Amino acid sequence: MDKIKNKLAENKIDAALVSSVPNIIYLTGYSGFSYFEREAFLLISKNKSYLITDGRYSEAVSNIILSSPKYELLEITSQNTIDKIFKKLSARIKKVGIEENDITVAENRRLKKYFKTKPLKDLQTLRVIKDQSEISKIEKACKIGDKAFDFILKKLKAGVTEKQIAFELEMFIKKTGSDPSFPSIVAFGKNSSMPHHITSNSKLITHNPILLDFGVRFDNYCSDMTRTVFFGKADDKFKKIYQTVLNAQEKAINLLNNKCHSERSEESRSFGLLPQDDIKASDVDKVARSHIIDHGFPTIPHSLGHGIGIKVHEGPRLSPKSKDILKPGMVFSIEPGIYLPGYGGVRIEDLVVLEKSKLKLLTHSPKQIIEI
Amino acid sequence: MDKIKNKLAENKIDAALVSSVPNIIYLTGYSGFSYFEREAFLLISKNKSYLITDGRYSEAVSNIILSSPKYELLEITSQNTIDKIFKKLSARIKKVGIEENDITVAENRRLKKYFKTKPLKDLQTLRVIKDQSEISKIEKACKIGDKAFDFILKKLKAGVTEKQIAFELEMFIKKTGSDPSFPSIVAFGKNSSMPHHITSNSKLITHNPILLDFGVRFDNYCSDMTRTVFFGKADDKFKKIYQTVLNAQEKAINLLNNKCHSERSEESRSFGLLPQDDIKASDVDKVARSHIIDHGFPTIPHSLGHGIGIKVHEGPRLSPKSKDILKPGMVFSIEPGIYLPGYGGVRIEDLVVLEKSKLKLLTHSPKQIIEI
Repeated sequence: MDKIKNKLAENKIDAALVSSVPNIIYLTGYSGFSYFEREAFLLISKNKSYLITDGRYSEAVSNIILSSPKYELLEITSQNTIDKIFKKLSARIKKVGIEENDITVAENRRLKKYFKTKPLKDLQTLRVIKDQSEISKIEKACKIGDKAFDFILKKLKAGVTEKQIAFELEMFIKKTGSDPSFPSIVAFGKNSSMPHHITSNSKLITHNPILLDFGVRFDNYCSDMTRTVFFGKADDKFKKIYQTVLNAQEKAINLLNNKCHSERSEESRSFGLLPQDDIKASDVDKVARSHIIDHGFPTIPHSLGHGIGIKVHEGPRLSPKSKDILKPGMVFSIEPGIYLPGYGGVRIEDLVVLEKSKLKLLTHSPKQIIEI
Repeated sequence: MDKIKNKLAENKIDAALVSSVPNIIYLTGYSGFSYFEREAFLLISKNKSYLITDGRYSEAVSNIILSSPKYELLEITSQNTIDKIFKKLSARIKKVGIEENDITVAENRRLKKYFKTKPLKDLQTLRVIKDQSEISKIEKACKIGDKAFDFILKKLKAGVTEKQIAFELEMFIKKTGSDPSFPSIVAFGKNSSMPHHITSNSKLITHNPILLDFGVRFDNYCSDMTRTVFFGKADDKFKKIYQTVLNAQEKAINLLNNKCHSERSEESRSFGLLPQDDIKASDVDKVARSHIIDHGFPTIPHSLGHGIGIKVHEGPRLSPKSKDILKPGMVFSIEPGIYLPGYGGVRIEDLVVLEKSKLKLLTHSPKQIIEI
């Protein structure tokens, strides 16, 4: 909250309007609002913050966040409409910073009746650097994911459907008291050539790759991992694809590790006075992508990786055109893949956290080729 | 699709940019895109429709919708960026209708570099009237919900937690091959006074109300229902609250039924030439809301009801300020509730479909007071 308040003067605005659900969770700890429609705004001004929501949530949020005198609840009712609330606020608040990637055109038009609105970039990058407690939660989510992977391997039998496997995965996760962080992707055989295949009623038969992409949400923080295993003996083509993907991932990890080490050694030589050696997200993408292309396979049809936290996909972005610089405290995926339509695909995805002087792997499921 | 194409000339636009996931599902049948980030646009012009997405989805959508020569896939890659795609399209397409409730401020700014954009209201109400096949799917989802309710009653035992009950509910739903349409709300005791309580680890003890609000997604279409039962003998206060909520719902249903009947009889008298007797959504809200207030209880802190379909909440809206007119083919919830902080709450929610001359109930779980 203080970080945002400090940005108000700098951006010449009177208040910041936080609207995205992940940012509201991040700032208030309250995770009850729907992602599917607008149910709340958090308006942060220098001296006071206003939580604007309706009667479905008033009691819940008053229990959780209204303990501080710096917060005020503004309840939307059929009498006290959102327009009336904005109008009252506009007596003191003139210029409002908005999340331009979240506020819709229609919402912005309504806001403009009462305020001057202006995109506030800081709200977009608010969650990109994680603190230790956030990293611990993601790490816990990853541990549950690793256990789920270990568990699901035993369920892969001839005739089982993708949906049944997804169901077993999710049951396992839910039994730990957590939730899946997104609908699990289970793809058998040729279906694995679609990076985001919709889990179907396809049945498992031998000589098939099995792509499993799933995650866990633990205490509001997400994990995400992918493993591709083989049902029966893997043929040479599959083995070559698998090894190429694995090596591409290793190259990306090595690049990150080397950059981390060179930073550390320079730091120790110079007592930390040398400028940090920037790690460009696009460079990490490139080393993995080039490895795959150089081995005669099609380019990865998605980014090499994405940041993760309260949302499954958030900053930074590891892609060819990304301008992001990787910094300590960032948690992201590294997930190269090769997809051959009509044949099948392989993706290997792990989560890592960039620490001050090293890269730490958060997912630990085995990566040697598994034949079931 | 034709409905939209016919609206282009009328709105003086060259194309409609469909961006919301429910509208893309509605128009293409493909349900693989994420609700959490922009993964596709469907641009509909008079002679051709363009599906703009990236390599994660190219194969999947080509299987499903690219069978028609009227469709073209425009694949976003790191070379062929979304900007390049928009630029190319702007050679022929100048004015684009957008979903102003879905396109963000940032997206609109990007679009405006290449097109004139203009809100297209028809995209907002596209799905509000359901055809018979859609109604059948919602009805099927409701049937599974009724079975789930019947099943879950047997699981309500002393000491069980809200989360365990939600888990059992969801397992039951998933075993039928469907999915929950939203995270189930299970609220024991005082928690039931929060209309959208976050299901917790609270344990069930006797003399407690139990509020169960859950839904099923069957073949992309959602159900939604709420029942409140009592664990142990219900006290007089609870019984009075329950009866008031139930009567409020009955009044709303009766109003709708009477309006339907009066329409039918007028129609039969006049051979259908008389103008239809409009049913205002706000009138239906009012009759239920007034009943609750007249009995000395606080007003319903939410709308009486909402439309449902591919999304759990869509048009029409049954609320005091709603301008919506209820029409044949609309499917919506009727869900009055009384919530007393520190004591508990009761909500009873059913789905109905407005047919030409009658109101049809889609959920059939019992509504007499249940004491377990």
